[in-house]
Amino acid sequence: MAGTHHPPDPAFETRVRTSFARQAFMVTLGAQLITVEPGRVIIELPFQADHTQQHGFLHAGVVTALADSACGYAALSLMPRGTAVLSVEFKVNLMKPATGNRFRAVGTVLRAGHTLSVCSADVQALREGEWMDVAVMQATMMTVRDGGDLSD
Amino acid sequence: MAGTHHPPDPAFETRVRTSFARQAFMVTLGAQLITVEPGRVIIELPFQADHTQQHGFLHAGVVTALADSACGYAALSLMPRGTAVLSVEFKVNLMKPATGNRFRAVGTVLRAGHTLSVCSADVQALREGEWMDVAVMQATMMTVRDGGDLSD
Amino acid sequence: MAGTHHPPDPAFETRVRTSFARQAFMVTLGAQLITVEPGRVIIELPFQADHTQQHGFLHAGVVTALADSACGYAALSLMPRGTAVLSVEFKVNLMKPATGNRFRAVGTVLRAGHTLSVCSADVQALREGEWMDVAVMQATMMTVRDGGDLSD
Amino acid sequence: MAGTHHPPDPAFETRVRTSFARQAFMVTLGAQLITVEPGRVIIELPFQADHTQQHGFLHAGVVTALADSACGYAALSLMPRGTAVLSVEFKVNLMKPATGNRFRAVGTVLRAGHTLSVCSADVQALREGEWMDVAVMQATMMTVRDGGDLSD
Repeated sequence: MAGTHHPPDPAFETRVRTSFARQAFMVTLGAQLITVEPGRVIIELPFQADHTQQHGFLHAGVVTALADSACGYAALSLMPRGTAVLSVEFKVNLMKPATGNRFRAVGTVLRAGHTLSVCSADVQALREGEWMDVAVMQATMMTVRDGGDLSD
Repeated sequence: MAGTHHPPDPAFETRVRTSFARQAFMVTLGAQLITVEPGRVIIELPFQADHTQQHGFLHAGVVTALADSACGYAALSLMPRGTAVLSVEFKVNLMKPATGNRFRAVGTVLRAGHTLSVCSADVQALREGEWMDVAVMQATMMTVRDGGDLSD
Repeated sequence: MAGTHHPPDPAFETRVRTSFARQAFMVTLGAQLITVEPGRVIIELPFQADHTQQHGFLHAGVVTALADSACGYAALSLMPRGTAVLSVEFKVNLMKPATGNRFRAVGTVLRAGHTLSVCSADVQALREGEWMDVAVMQATMMTVRDGGDLSD
Repeated sequence: MAGTHHPPDPAFETRVRTSFARQAFMVTLGAQLITVEPGRVIIELPFQADHTQQHGFLHAGVVTALADSACGYAALSLMPRGTAVLSVEFKVNLMKPATGNRFRAVGTVLRAGHTLSVCSADVQALREGEWMDVAVMQATMMTVRDGGDLSD
């Protein structure tokens, strides 16, 4: 997808990185914003035992947090200046146990609309040097315009 | 829904509470397992600034973590002894900004099958003494039998 | 849900019935609009062999068609005059084989927003005189204002 | 995806085509099974006015029917002999109005598991000689083994 999108705001990367830095939960998790391209964002997270569920896999909430932020910032990278992004909804399929040394979510924009954007994310785990797909997200993101109501 | 389900394992509450205590991420978040009934589980979480996204709302990943665990344990409460629960997939609609003093997810089982269970969760925020709906989840959970393969 | 919503357009029922009558596919299927209340719509369909999948169950596309129209019209019933409704996305869990003499979808509005509404639908099958849940939908509907662009 | 999957049943194409021919609803719609590869299936449908919703777009139920059958048969193409496929759940994002001369759903398997398969489908419309994405599906399909219970 990357490369086929033309971001209306040339300062898109700064805008995405500034917003990411304000996502307290990404900081709490220890997640890093690796790549910011027009319509494509990658977020990485090292494995930590305190992010796991009862079988020692990464908790589905953490898998979702990475994928949601990757989708949201991929969408924001294509939005005009003076707008903000809100998650409307998403759906996640957990395909394999999320085990590995590192995890990453690759979010891409499938369709950038005036009000709504459709995104997908692949969540991958690094095992023996190779990235393996463990989950997929399909999501809707909303453009909130300057002075727009974040509660509607 | 609660009350219409007959749990095949009379020790369902102990089994759910033991598994919840092993979910390191729930401990990390500071979440508490409040209610465990047959087919219905409530998990609560006090507001913490380090769980927020860029606008100060609870991050969608935390909203999802609560809802996923509530759905999973509601499903587990109706599973026979010697089984484990895995999340297959879920879908979340974020209906209102997740702001408040406390949050809770109320997970209920809509259909308890041999292999798959369908669950829903309401995520609510406590504002001025009242619980308000902020998100809804619709989820599929899987029963993994003794000796079953958690990776399939 | 019904009864708690106040429709901004008193002529909501006429508006919903007029739009339903223009849904050629509902006519093709033989579906009937049974109930139109503020935020709640019921659509029924008699069983027909030519709507089935390979095992003789109602095809998931037909299940979805009923649920999507019920959700969309439940949302439209709460929209102001001069607007139209578009489906943004939906998610369906097929809980039991869709077999029976009649089927119905009961769509309800969970949250009516300015731009987006969140709805759910229960799809039920009539077997031996009793309505049984066979599927559930969670959906997002969009309000398109007068002169608004249906393609965005 | 196609080409990376090894179908356990060499007669997969015959099995898929035989089952498709028994999907009465596909026949009713006038849909055709165009391509059957290991893990990838394409279904096409010419535009018909009696498949539309109130604005003249292809009804979301028809969009879903094509995508669901394409996903289901992509999954079945990778299942062993003596099994059947059932749709567990799916999620559809309607990205653009479904208008055009022909429509097609391209279903691919993202992960083929013992019990559950994860699939995605792109639904496209033919406009002025070009296929345009109008919807995407993310779905879970289930393998039902010989003698297995289709109702569980």
